[in-house]
Amino acid sequence: MAMAMAMGAPREQLRVDARAPGKVILSGEHAVVHGTSAVAAALGLYTTATIRPGVDDGCVLDLPQLGVNLKWPLKVIEEIVTQGHLLDPKPAHVASYAESEWPQLGAFVEQQLGLHAVKGADAAVTAFLFLYTSILGLQPVTVRVTSELPVGAGLGSSAAYCVALSAGLLAYCGEIDLPQENGADRKTWIDVNEKKIDLVNRWAFEGERIIHGRPSGIDNTVSSFGYVVKFKQGQITRLHTQLPLRMLLTNTQVGRNTKALVAGVGERALRHPAAMGAIFKAIDEIAEEVVTILLTPSENSGGEKKKGEEIVSTEECGPHPVFKTEQEVRLQELVEMNQGLLQGIGVSHLSIESICQITASYRLQSKLTGAGGGGCVLTLLPHKLSSTSVELVKVDLEAKGFSCFEAVIGGNGVQVSCQTLS
Amino acid sequence: MAMAMAMGAPREQLRVDARAPGKVILSGEHAVVHGTSAVAAALGLYTTATIRPGVDDGCVLDLPQLGVNLKWPLKVIEEIVTQGHLLDPKPAHVASYAESEWPQLGAFVEQQLGLHAVKGADAAVTAFLFLYTSILGLQPVTVRVTSELPVGAGLGSSAAYCVALSAGLLAYCGEIDLPQENGADRKTWIDVNEKKIDLVNRWAFEGERIIHGRPSGIDNTVSSFGYVVKFKQGQITRLHTQLPLRMLLTNTQVGRNTKALVAGVGERALRHPAAMGAIFKAIDEIAEEVVTILLTPSENSGGEKKKGEEIVSTEECGPHPVFKTEQEVRLQELVEMNQGLLQGIGVSHLSIESICQITASYRLQSKLTGAGGGGCVLTLLPHKLSSTSVELVKVDLEAKGFSCFEAVIGGNGVQVSCQTLS
Repeated sequence: MAMAMAMGAPREQLRVDARAPGKVILSGEHAVVHGTSAVAAALGLYTTATIRPGVDDGCVLDLPQLGVNLKWPLKVIEEIVTQGHLLDPKPAHVASYAESEWPQLGAFVEQQLGLHAVKGADAAVTAFLFLYTSILGLQPVTVRVTSELPVGAGLGSSAAYCVALSAGLLAYCGEIDLPQENGADRKTWIDVNEKKIDLVNRWAFEGERIIHGRPSGIDNTVSSFGYVVKFKQGQITRLHTQLPLRMLLTNTQVGRNTKALVAGVGERALRHPAAMGAIFKAIDEIAEEVVTILLTPSENSGGEKKKGEEIVSTEECGPHPVFKTEQEVRLQELVEMNQGLLQGIGVSHLSIESICQITASYRLQSKLTGAGGGGCVLTLLPHKLSSTSVELVKVDLEAKGFSCFEAVIGGNGVQVSCQTLS
Repeated sequence: MAMAMAMGAPREQLRVDARAPGKVILSGEHAVVHGTSAVAAALGLYTTATIRPGVDDGCVLDLPQLGVNLKWPLKVIEEIVTQGHLLDPKPAHVASYAESEWPQLGAFVEQQLGLHAVKGADAAVTAFLFLYTSILGLQPVTVRVTSELPVGAGLGSSAAYCVALSAGLLAYCGEIDLPQENGADRKTWIDVNEKKIDLVNRWAFEGERIIHGRPSGIDNTVSSFGYVVKFKQGQITRLHTQLPLRMLLTNTQVGRNTKALVAGVGERALRHPAAMGAIFKAIDEIAEEVVTILLTPSENSGGEKKKGEEIVSTEECGPHPVFKTEQEVRLQELVEMNQGLLQGIGVSHLSIESICQITASYRLQSKLTGAGGGGCVLTLLPHKLSSTSVELVKVDLEAKGFSCFEAVIGGNGVQVSCQTLS
């Protein structure tokens, strides 16, 4: 039975879901710290926050992947946030939020966490308490957040967590339009209204500040708005491109120390200012060319063959040929160049190079994405590449102990869905 | 019995030896084609030409590594060179030499070569016939050329061949001073007099033109003058540095197509002018910094610890620590950066990366040298690195099927020696 939702009213008999994508950096990592452009895109793997009415005047937070399952009476939460002088259940609070006020909750949250909590769970719980009390006030709710994104792999899992939570809470309190229910079993996801995305994004950024201290704002912007975002000298520009790119994402399973990697690049830039400056400039040019390619109406959108979609390269990929369009050839070259430059500035890793070599044997170029030193590797997949070929590459990568999955890059941002509870 | 040699007179009772070093490109390969700087240095592996009086009015050419052992009556040689209109047994001939005149000897030379001749032997024989007849005229001689340099590995073996031959022939006809014999078994090598090196170099360049068509002149200049040479936009600058660098040179054993590699880089530069331009600029900056480091009076000259020779880095290299001076740390970073950039422009190879990864596991940075796509890889060895550590690295590399040898880079150029025949 279809039912239109009223705006602005609490939806106590509703289950609200909000999902937010991860992000990948297509190009410009590290150099961006030195003032050049970076390009990030939404990664079609989602973190989903489910908000439903609570029971017994309590608030339940269930984060299965972080080993967190907490239940607080609302009175306890009121005490916590009063101690923190933070209770202000209005979105307008965003403007007055002060970064320094939340860390004092650390001890409380740590004490709440059980044995099964994963490292970093305290920050996730603190961010939840902030977003929940600020947006919903003290309503009894049960919140569960699950994710397809690996944590700490540079894929923006914390931003997706904050965006999904913010959108879910805002939709639950009636600030965001929800889709009409179609009565079918299948969920209907709708994009968050453009005007409201900005609100989601601002809340999510506050959550990110609790988790990261001084986030760049790229991750939550990409997760909120989706598609592709360019970032340069603190300026975030959304690119009006909806070309999804097909990628293979491989997790090296090697943990990394982002701060140390960034510091290492900085020290090298001090020792070799001219050469490193030229390398940053080269990375900048690559990022700009990636933007140009992504903004060019093209054959990259997949699907039916269009006018101008010329196959310019046919290469062997194992037993199967790889058909590449001119744009794919250009993007692949840029990927190879970017990876070489990242190796040159010292942020690659044996595991990353090993993945690049395996995919190169299939004529597919790869680059690290994010901080490097481990983390994830992106491989551009031509749209015409058969799934059999992709399977072969995956088998090879998995045989070396890497985990990989195909994903669409540059798709939608945050979306919401709902279900009336009987 | 010591004996001073007279200048300018044929030395019929003498055996003359001339040896010329190979070369390595320290930095700037490929980018140099696009107008930036390259730095090349003498490689302490030699090609030696031995000239002794001939027998039976004939000329013998023995190139054991190329499978060449030819003997011609002088009358036949006269016919050949008369057909080629080339007989002009004076060094002044260099100025009037025309590149186009020698290829017509190809058919004759090919017909002379036996079954055992290695590919490229025809060019070596043609270059010999040119240098021999131009410098010595028609004297009966027996010439043997042997080399420590692998052929076709980008180590300047053809230039060393031409330089050794030119110097040997010029010394044999009295144009170059020879050392006094000391009567001992051990050969006394002396550097060719500075003024005469230029003559050797010009002749060698003509030989290189026969072998390569349009050589850059870097290889013969480095082999003739030794030490380090900077090359930019056709301008060759000798660097007055005599700092030998300690290197491990590893042959990937993978053959490569230099022309195709250079063309590939050129095409990529056309497709991505801004990004590739910035990469070439980065390579240029690296080459300039290498020059600056090499010209700075420093601790890199090995031997005794000097004032200012501070060990700034102590890293593990297998079971042994690696002590690196500040200059060595800087040079190693430049090597890593340069290799990344070369990978980025698409001229690396799986075998090259494999070598880089093996040496990196010992905290030693490597880069391809020359055209890439196979060929040789340079690894900078800190002067304080123990020979035991070097052995460990070599064992690892050789276990993967690579051949490697330690060599001094940036040492002397062409040298001569002689022996009175009884």
